[in-house]
Amino acid sequence: MDFSYSPKTVELQQRVLAFVREHVQPAEAEFKREMAAFRAAGNPWQGTQTMERLKAAARAAGLWNLFLPESQEGAGLSNLEYAPICEIMGRYPLTGEAMNCSAPDTGNMEILERFGTPEQKQRWLKPLLAGTIRSGFAMTEPAVASSDATAIESRIERDGDQYVINGRKWWTSGAPDPRCEILIFMGKTDPSASTYRQQSMVLVPKDTPGVDVVRPLTVFGYDHAPHGHAEVNFTNVRVPVTNVLLGEGRGFEIAQARLGPGRIHHCMRLIGMAERALELMCRRSLARKPFGKLLSDQGVTRERVANARIMIDQARFLVLHAAYRMDTVGNKAAKKDIAMIKVAAPTMACQVIDWAMQVHGGAAVCEDTPLASMYASARTVRFADGPDEVHRNQIGKMEIEQYMTAKA
Amino acid sequence: MDFSYSPKTVELQQRVLAFVREHVQPAEAEFKREMAAFRAAGNPWQGTQTMERLKAAARAAGLWNLFLPESQEGAGLSNLEYAPICEIMGRYPLTGEAMNCSAPDTGNMEILERFGTPEQKQRWLKPLLAGTIRSGFAMTEPAVASSDATAIESRIERDGDQYVINGRKWWTSGAPDPRCEILIFMGKTDPSASTYRQQSMVLVPKDTPGVDVVRPLTVFGYDHAPHGHAEVNFTNVRVPVTNVLLGEGRGFEIAQARLGPGRIHHCMRLIGMAERALELMCRRSLARKPFGKLLSDQGVTRERVANARIMIDQARFLVLHAAYRMDTVGNKAAKKDIAMIKVAAPTMACQVIDWAMQVHGGAAVCEDTPLASMYASARTVRFADGPDEVHRNQIGKMEIEQYMTAKA
Amino acid sequence: MDFSYSPKTVELQQRVLAFVREHVQPAEAEFKREMAAFRAAGNPWQGTQTMERLKAAARAAGLWNLFLPESQEGAGLSNLEYAPICEIMGRYPLTGEAMNCSAPDTGNMEILERFGTPEQKQRWLKPLLAGTIRSGFAMTEPAVASSDATAIESRIERDGDQYVINGRKWWTSGAPDPRCEILIFMGKTDPSASTYRQQSMVLVPKDTPGVDVVRPLTVFGYDHAPHGHAEVNFTNVRVPVTNVLLGEGRGFEIAQARLGPGRIHHCMRLIGMAERALELMCRRSLARKPFGKLLSDQGVTRERVANARIMIDQARFLVLHAAYRMDTVGNKAAKKDIAMIKVAAPTMACQVIDWAMQVHGGAAVCEDTPLASMYASARTVRFADGPDEVHRNQIGKMEIEQYMTAKA
Amino acid sequence: MDFSYSPKTVELQQRVLAFVREHVQPAEAEFKREMAAFRAAGNPWQGTQTMERLKAAARAAGLWNLFLPESQEGAGLSNLEYAPICEIMGRYPLTGEAMNCSAPDTGNMEILERFGTPEQKQRWLKPLLAGTIRSGFAMTEPAVASSDATAIESRIERDGDQYVINGRKWWTSGAPDPRCEILIFMGKTDPSASTYRQQSMVLVPKDTPGVDVVRPLTVFGYDHAPHGHAEVNFTNVRVPVTNVLLGEGRGFEIAQARLGPGRIHHCMRLIGMAERALELMCRRSLARKPFGKLLSDQGVTRERVANARIMIDQARFLVLHAAYRMDTVGNKAAKKDIAMIKVAAPTMACQVIDWAMQVHGGAAVCEDTPLASMYASARTVRFADGPDEVHRNQIGKMEIEQYMTAKA
Repeated sequence: MDFSYSPKTVELQQRVLAFVREHVQPAEAEFKREMAAFRAAGNPWQGTQTMERLKAAARAAGLWNLFLPESQEGAGLSNLEYAPICEIMGRYPLTGEAMNCSAPDTGNMEILERFGTPEQKQRWLKPLLAGTIRSGFAMTEPAVASSDATAIESRIERDGDQYVINGRKWWTSGAPDPRCEILIFMGKTDPSASTYRQQSMVLVPKDTPGVDVVRPLTVFGYDHAPHGHAEVNFTNVRVPVTNVLLGEGRGFEIAQARLGPGRIHHCMRLIGMAERALELMCRRSLARKPFGKLLSDQGVTRERVANARIMIDQARFLVLHAAYRMDTVGNKAAKKDIAMIKVAAPTMACQVIDWAMQVHGGAAVCEDTPLASMYASARTVRFADGPDEVHRNQIGKMEIEQYMTAKA
Repeated sequence: MDFSYSPKTVELQQRVLAFVREHVQPAEAEFKREMAAFRAAGNPWQGTQTMERLKAAARAAGLWNLFLPESQEGAGLSNLEYAPICEIMGRYPLTGEAMNCSAPDTGNMEILERFGTPEQKQRWLKPLLAGTIRSGFAMTEPAVASSDATAIESRIERDGDQYVINGRKWWTSGAPDPRCEILIFMGKTDPSASTYRQQSMVLVPKDTPGVDVVRPLTVFGYDHAPHGHAEVNFTNVRVPVTNVLLGEGRGFEIAQARLGPGRIHHCMRLIGMAERALELMCRRSLARKPFGKLLSDQGVTRERVANARIMIDQARFLVLHAAYRMDTVGNKAAKKDIAMIKVAAPTMACQVIDWAMQVHGGAAVCEDTPLASMYASARTVRFADGPDEVHRNQIGKMEIEQYMTAKA
Repeated sequence: MDFSYSPKTVELQQRVLAFVREHVQPAEAEFKREMAAFRAAGNPWQGTQTMERLKAAARAAGLWNLFLPESQEGAGLSNLEYAPICEIMGRYPLTGEAMNCSAPDTGNMEILERFGTPEQKQRWLKPLLAGTIRSGFAMTEPAVASSDATAIESRIERDGDQYVINGRKWWTSGAPDPRCEILIFMGKTDPSASTYRQQSMVLVPKDTPGVDVVRPLTVFGYDHAPHGHAEVNFTNVRVPVTNVLLGEGRGFEIAQARLGPGRIHHCMRLIGMAERALELMCRRSLARKPFGKLLSDQGVTRERVANARIMIDQARFLVLHAAYRMDTVGNKAAKKDIAMIKVAAPTMACQVIDWAMQVHGGAAVCEDTPLASMYASARTVRFADGPDEVHRNQIGKMEIEQYMTAKA
Repeated sequence: MDFSYSPKTVELQQRVLAFVREHVQPAEAEFKREMAAFRAAGNPWQGTQTMERLKAAARAAGLWNLFLPESQEGAGLSNLEYAPICEIMGRYPLTGEAMNCSAPDTGNMEILERFGTPEQKQRWLKPLLAGTIRSGFAMTEPAVASSDATAIESRIERDGDQYVINGRKWWTSGAPDPRCEILIFMGKTDPSASTYRQQSMVLVPKDTPGVDVVRPLTVFGYDHAPHGHAEVNFTNVRVPVTNVLLGEGRGFEIAQARLGPGRIHHCMRLIGMAERALELMCRRSLARKPFGKLLSDQGVTRERVANARIMIDQARFLVLHAAYRMDTVGNKAAKKDIAMIKVAAPTMACQVIDWAMQVHGGAAVCEDTPLASMYASARTVRFADGPDEVHRNQIGKMEIEQYMTAKA
């Protein structure tokens, strides 16, 4: 249970924070302006020059593709080492893409690195690692519960040298982005196989005929342009059979492998968001004096600040412990730990952000603070990859099972 | 403590519900399409034909201006009688404007009816009652706490027969709407007067030179077009002194009078929203079967449905009781009751909507359900007109004061 | 939905409160002393002279057996009329027994009144109504869930003109009290009958051979002497078959009939307790000044006082509404309402009492305030007559079922 | 941030657990019987033979006085090393005294070890370390807030070679125990000195004339015999001036030094209690099948078990981190950390125990499970050494202060 950040981690943390201060923070207003201009002109679905400049700067600073754990291409960081970097990315949202470390590309690149053929890597992983294209992950379906990966209904049927793909996906993040060129699609190749062998994952170029990005989906009114999330229809989409990842029937297995590290990333980002919200809450409380008394001097404010501090620190310890477990005993043995952070971190973040909103009044819900937007994101994670309830059910089951045979 | 809905109330409730079923519900999709078309064409700030049709229908059905309590123009309903109509408007959001009963016009019309001169009524109340124009209420300021009406900094200075108005307002609902033609502006006429006599309210036509609708404000990511909320700058805006309401130094008094009934309206709308969220939660739970078991058969779902039912009913009783108190002892004596519902109703609504969201997964946050939008609205009410904290502080103070002299 | 207290109710409320002020409050210290002396002498299981004096006073004041709804012997009060009297009894705990209105006797007398034979009434109801003996209700069993009345395992077997009774009961309130002379015992007469026809209720004099009061049970360390709760074993206990209530196989039916009014009584008592806790919290906050600032002037205190006020009022409305429903549509149709108050009232009371405890520090948990004792009682009601979870499950089920056929 | 248990810690943990299994668990029933016999005979304030046997066994096993950090007499454990031992003591309550590691003696011995004169050590520390006598800490006063150590009103006045002591203390744990022979008394020697120099601590043998153990105090209904807590009056109590600890005016300083480690001990004990409650909840859920379905298979149970697991683990990380901070940066720099665990651990424990109670029904509140007793203890810690509110206020203040000068 050794959570200490190694000297290597601390050094990297410092470098990333320096990058944030020198490049990211000054670019935030510029990014907003560029997006506002796109919007005014009627199309927010465009990459910004600001982001391209940030990417160049990150690359120059050697802060690129830090996420890849066991690859020549990455920084060779363990989950525990990469976690604090995710926290920074949660706090300063442009940082992730700037360092080519943003979802869903990170998960997609990891899959390609681990399971891709040399040809697949050459064609898709290379430009993804270079940050010249982006990618999507087409798994969740509107018709079935996303918590149950075995429930997906999309079909991938073999027809000679090709797969014929049909299905309706949604919440495919990045799909509305013109830079997104490749989708990883999950569907059933063999509905008659055993439960966990029915699914396969196939690479589908976004411009393949039959791929239809039906509409972008909003999150509490936010479209998250230029990246966004979309509903995507696949109608008789044909790709060569060589586009399968790892082999037919291996889809569930890949999905599982993708899940663990993603949880750490998401949860640490939420902790970064919560830290930012707490900072905003503290600063605002020092700046407002209704009825002649600074909010910072009021007991109710201090109670919440105290509870926020306690909750954030507790959540961070839990996430770091889960990362440590993944690094030391593997994702499978750390199943309960991973489920626990999935429950704890978003609930905590929602609460802390909500408190921060309350001291900001109207500024909390409009674009003058990032609070409402952060809330929307944190709230969504409470059901993304399956709702909390499913994870709590599993944790409870595992906990109770220990006592099925043990005597008192 | 007699909350029973009178036969008159029940009959009106039935008529409004019939109107909703026959006119409002069928028009919802159409309204959405019209707004989407406006948006696609680059300007969502336009009134819709759908709404005009609904207004005509409501008028024909005799469901028009129901809110006005003691006026020839209204339906003569007490707060307790009007409350259940507000609940329906909260549940079916187009209903309010259709019946010319939507904020902030209701409050503005009430002020004009009670405090306006015959000329002011003729010029502004008449078209408002006819539903041909709309209005805004320019009170909240970005620089000071909205909970403290005495803190506003805007100035109204007399210059001969005119007032010269300067100040920065925000959250002026309706200001971005082209149909909004008149603003009620609150500012200080005499900063040297006693605390509650410094403020005045003045009618400011929106097209007066110097009135600048700076930007629409979003609530989470929603712009609430075509009505919206705006930041509005007033720079050397000149209006005749006859535009003052009730007289100089009476602004605070008018603000107080406006507040009470508005609270009942808001709180009953939140209860309507919560009822809708609960219905959606129940229906969804009957439609989804993750891991082979209907959500409706799962204990966790039932717990939340039960708690939601209990919380909604409790909140409704509390609001109806406050309405009854306002009707029987007056707004001033009912001060604590009114503060109590301001705290109870939005908190309850946020929780119920949040539970409903959780069973909907991704559908909860995008436009496929009204849930995220309802959450954004309910969340905002937790600090609109002053945050919960201010009201709880006041309630607590009043409760404790009872024991300052009483013996045990 | 007419909750107004009728003039009759208000008048009765005033009379009971006058009785409390004149007799009950002055007697509290005396009662404590008497009990302390019993305890010091080694046997707290004795009736006090204080209580006998209070009973005489209540009788003289015409405040006797108020609970009986439709009987010559009672006050002819409806549930809604009797409810506020229960609130007073919750606030001043000696009041209930003083007026011969305390559990479990009230429920037992009601059963006897409604279902007893003339002989049963003469023998047991008469002295109970006179307050010369007390009674117990032997239903809950340690081996099975008390939430499921059909699960009880005790047996009542006919042997000629007698029933032979065997079983182990616990939480038989009043059993350790020497004044308790009669027990109503529930057991199975016919395990092969249909689910709700297996049980019967039989009158068992406590001094019948084979009745063994094994031990008094504590509630958070309190023994609740001289009344108490006990574990009671029944071993081959023989009573005449004429002791059956209503007839064989009618036990479940009687249990159901007993339940509804008891819920109102319990819940209103909890509301009375919560009011008392709130009063204590307010008074203490005016008396303590840590770090130079009165607790009553601190935001955190006021927040809790405000929330307590809101929660108590909401709970009271809900309970009165349930009483009103029972009076107007009957216990069966009011099933959901009754379940709702069972969930809402004890949770509320626990929270309010907990807040009150927190401002009292050490005085909260020792005998210097009634707070810890009230908490223990309120906490127990959260699972007495079945845990909250069972009731929430049922409420949720009923709520959802409304949508099984209804269209949106 | 290295929390790993060292091999030394793990080894000790194993040894203590082995001791618990071999000696403590088998002795629990015996201890209960012995106490019940004392009670039946009219005096529970007696040491048991069971405990003496356990003490001998612990001593023989080398598990004695483990708490003393930097002393020949102790085990030389750091806070982080001793913490897991406290968790075990919380889980199995007899263990602490058995190993001579129970409050308030641990804190008292630490004070004597650090600040006592050779004579004081010889006279009082020696028998305390030997476990032949016990001790009390007389600090809290009924008249003032215990959160504010500067508020105490007791007086210690010098009269020649003696101190004359007057004051009223309560919650002096251990005072009713006949084995308790020495009290550490805190009072003001110089009310005119600066705030933190007014207080002194003086050793007062319990049998000194003028020391009056007025009454034992109950916690909820528990008297915690044979140890207990008492109200103690000191009337013109005279002790030699050599009984002062560290010197006049050093009382506050000693109190502070005593506090930090005590917090770790208390919090880890609460975590042990919570773990036990969780175990009981799991086991009970596997043993009860109301309405035909095991509680362990019900979603509501699993939710709570999951949340309990998450909350316990989070709290443990927080406490271990605070221990690590105390060990590495000192108690003063770890002030915020220590305040944070004081808030987090008891709240968590109360919640987990409460959930465990709910699945046990009546068994939860009577003596058949330790749950109600554990709840009473955990609840008390929420205000012992100052209520949570005071600590949250301080944490919030410290957190906000970071931003008073820092720029965004």
